[in-house]
Amino acid sequence: MTLPLNPAMAATFPPPVMEARRWLSGVVFTPERPLINVSQAAPVDSPPLGLRQALAEAALHDPQAHLYGPVLGLPALREEIAAQWSAAYGGSIRDDQVAITQGCNQAFTAVMSTLAGAGDEVILPTPWYFNHKMWLDMQGVTTVPMATGSDLLPDPDKAASLITPRTRAIVLVSPNNPGGVEYPAELIGRFRDLCRGRGLALIVDETYRDFDSRHGRDIGGRPHDLFTDPDWDDVLIQLYSFSKAYRLTGHRVGAIVAAAARLAEVEKFLDTVAICPSQLGQIGALWGMQNLGAWVAGERAEILARRAAMLNGFKALPAWRLLGCGAYFAYVEHPFDASSADLAKQLVQDQAILMLPGTMFQPDSHAEGKRQFRIAFANVDAGGIAEMFNRLSDFRP
Amino acid sequence: MTLPLNPAMAATFPPPVMEARRWLSGVVFTPERPLINVSQAAPVDSPPLGLRQALAEAALHDPQAHLYGPVLGLPALREEIAAQWSAAYGGSIRDDQVAITQGCNQAFTAVMSTLAGAGDEVILPTPWYFNHKMWLDMQGVTTVPMATGSDLLPDPDKAASLITPRTRAIVLVSPNNPGGVEYPAELIGRFRDLCRGRGLALIVDETYRDFDSRHGRDIGGRPHDLFTDPDWDDVLIQLYSFSKAYRLTGHRVGAIVAAAARLAEVEKFLDTVAICPSQLGQIGALWGMQNLGAWVAGERAEILARRAAMLNGFKALPAWRLLGCGAYFAYVEHPFDASSADLAKQLVQDQAILMLPGTMFQPDSHAEGKRQFRIAFANVDAGGIAEMFNRLSDFRP
Repeated sequence: MTLPLNPAMAATFPPPVMEARRWLSGVVFTPERPLINVSQAAPVDSPPLGLRQALAEAALHDPQAHLYGPVLGLPALREEIAAQWSAAYGGSIRDDQVAITQGCNQAFTAVMSTLAGAGDEVILPTPWYFNHKMWLDMQGVTTVPMATGSDLLPDPDKAASLITPRTRAIVLVSPNNPGGVEYPAELIGRFRDLCRGRGLALIVDETYRDFDSRHGRDIGGRPHDLFTDPDWDDVLIQLYSFSKAYRLTGHRVGAIVAAAARLAEVEKFLDTVAICPSQLGQIGALWGMQNLGAWVAGERAEILARRAAMLNGFKALPAWRLLGCGAYFAYVEHPFDASSADLAKQLVQDQAILMLPGTMFQPDSHAEGKRQFRIAFANVDAGGIAEMFNRLSDFRP
Repeated sequence: MTLPLNPAMAATFPPPVMEARRWLSGVVFTPERPLINVSQAAPVDSPPLGLRQALAEAALHDPQAHLYGPVLGLPALREEIAAQWSAAYGGSIRDDQVAITQGCNQAFTAVMSTLAGAGDEVILPTPWYFNHKMWLDMQGVTTVPMATGSDLLPDPDKAASLITPRTRAIVLVSPNNPGGVEYPAELIGRFRDLCRGRGLALIVDETYRDFDSRHGRDIGGRPHDLFTDPDWDDVLIQLYSFSKAYRLTGHRVGAIVAAAARLAEVEKFLDTVAICPSQLGQIGALWGMQNLGAWVAGERAEILARRAAMLNGFKALPAWRLLGCGAYFAYVEHPFDASSADLAKQLVQDQAILMLPGTMFQPDSHAEGKRQFRIAFANVDAGGIAEMFNRLSDFRP
C-alpha cells in the first residue's frame, strides 16, 4: 500500500534552482571555457574578515550563541532594524514591529500563513518569484497571476479587477526578482491605497533594497513613502533578507516588518517551524548592520557598474530585448523560435552558461515565459560579463 | 478595515514556552532562592571547546560556511547519519534517505506537509508535543487525540479504532516528550504493522534517543527494530534533532530519515521555507557526530543519574504521582484541588520553580491535563533537584 501524499504538495513544482543544477551533471567545463553561472541570486565570496571574526569570536566565547533565543529574534537586532529603517524610510518603526526569520523565504511563508489558507486567493504579478508560487500551491491557496506590461511594472487598476471576496493579499517584489525593475514610489503608493481600501495586506519584499540604483541618491532618498504614513502597519508587511547585503546566505537570516499584532500570529508559525533563527546568523547580521554601511555602499557601486555593463552589452545584441535590469537581475527576451526551457539546457551544453528560463517565473498559461530568461549577473565581474556576451552572440540554437 | 487573518492561525494557541516565560515577568528571584527553570528541554551549557573551535575555524576559513548549500543538507552529514544509523539500528539506511532540516520542529512540519492538508486527520497520543498540535491546527488538519493509559503508553488497538478514510499518519515520540517514557520496541513494531496495513505513515520522533536508558545496554541495543526491515521506508519516517546531544539548540539542526521519494517532496517544502539549513550548524553537527561519541555517553550517564534522583525524590513525595520519567522529562500528577495552569503560576511566585502545566499537552476535553506537570529536569544538577523537591514539599496552594 502506498503512503499518503498531500495532493497540494504533489501539485507543487520542484525547486527550480535545484533542477537547473541537475542540468550541469555530466557536462565538462574546461579552464579555457569555465561555466558562467548566472542562475542563482547569491553572493559567491565570503563576508568581510571583520564579520567572520565576529562569528568566530561568538562561537568560541558567547554562550548565548549556542542557546535557543526568542522566537521573534534577538532584541538587539530587532532594535537595530527599527532604528535604521526609521531613518532610511523617514517613518516610525518600533522594535516590536520587527521579527527575525531564518531567511526571507521563511519570512514570506510565516506572514502568508497568517493571511491565507486553503481556498483563499493571493495576487502575484508575473513574472513571479517561484518560491512564493510554491508556498501558495502547497498550501492550497489559489495564485491569481497578474501579467505586467513590457516594462514589467504591475498595474493597480488591473489588480483591482482581479480582487474577489477570497483575495487576502497582493505581493510586490521591488527591486524585482526576477525582473530587475525598481518600482516607482508612486506606483507602490497606489497599491497601498488599493489594498487599504479593499482590506487586503500589501506585502512588499525588499530583499534587494541595498542594491537599488536610487539608494541614497539624495538626503531624503528612499524607495517608497509607505513608512512615512503613521498608520503604515494597518496595511503594509515588508520583508527583508540579510543574505545579499552581508553575504550571509549560508546563515539564513531575514526579517519581517509589520504590525505587532500580526507578529504575535507570526510567532506561532515561527515557534512551530523554526523555534528561533540561528543565533550566529543573527550575530553576524547585527555586526554587519553596525559596521558595514560603507562596505555595502561599495558593493552597491560595484553591482551598479555591472548593471551598466549589462545595459551596454544588450545594446550591442539588438536581437535580444532587455525588459528589466537592476539589483541582481536582468530579465530578457531571446530572439529564437524555441522555448527558453529547452534553450537553457542548450546554453549549458554549447556555451557553458547557466541561466533560468522564463518558464520558471510564469504560469503555463503565459506563453511569454518561453521567450524569457533571468540573468542573475551580480556575481559576474566585468570580464565575465563581456565573455557572457561573446558567448551569447555566438549562440545558435 | 482590518487586515485578513487566517482563521486556522487565529485558532492556533500561542507558543507555550513563550507564554511561560511571561509568567516570570516582574517576579524577583534572590540569590538565596534562584529560579529553578524546568520548563524547556534544552541544554544550558555551551558545546565542548572542540566543537566551538570547529565552528570558529569554519567561520574564519571555510568559504562554503557562508554560502547556500543543498536544500536537503550537507552530503557529508547525510552520509554520516546513514552510516551511524545503519550500525546503531542494525539496518540499511542510505544517504539519499536522509535530509537535514533547521531543527526537528521543521523536520516535522516538512514531513507532515507532504502527508496531510486541510481536512485530513492525524492521530497524536496524549499528552502530545505542543508544536505538533500547533502545526496541525494552523494547517487545518484535524488532530485526533488518543489518550494513553496510566503508564503513558499508546495502545495500537485504540489507534486502529480511531482511523478513518481521512487519516494520514500516526505520530509517536520516543523517548516521549512530555511523558518521559521509552516505548518498548515491540509496541513500536505493532504501530508499524498497523500503519503498514492501513496505508498510513508512522512518524517516530526520536529527538531524545541519545538519552534513552536502554542505549547501548547490550551489543545489539537499539530502541526498536523498525530499520531491520529492508522495506522500512514504505511506512516509517523518523525524525531527529542535534540540539540536545551536542548542545546546538541555537544553531537549529535536525534530520529526517525517510524514503528518497518522500524526501523529493520534502525538498519542495524546505526550498520554500528554508532554502538550506545553517551551514555552520551542520558543520558543528558533523563534527559532533565524528568526535563526541564518548562525550555524549558521559552526558547520557549524567542525565540518567539525574533521572535516578527524580525517581527517588518522588518516592519521598508520595502525594505526587510520577507517571513517566526518562530522557529529559518527568511527567507527574499533583495532589491539589486546582488546575495545573493556575498552580504553575503560583509555583513561580511562591517557590521560584517554572514548569509547564499538563494543560499545555492535552486537549481541553482531557481533564487530566489539569492534574499534570512536565518537569524538564535534565538541566538541573543533583543539588538543584534536591532543592526542587524541598520546595515542592513546602508548596501549599
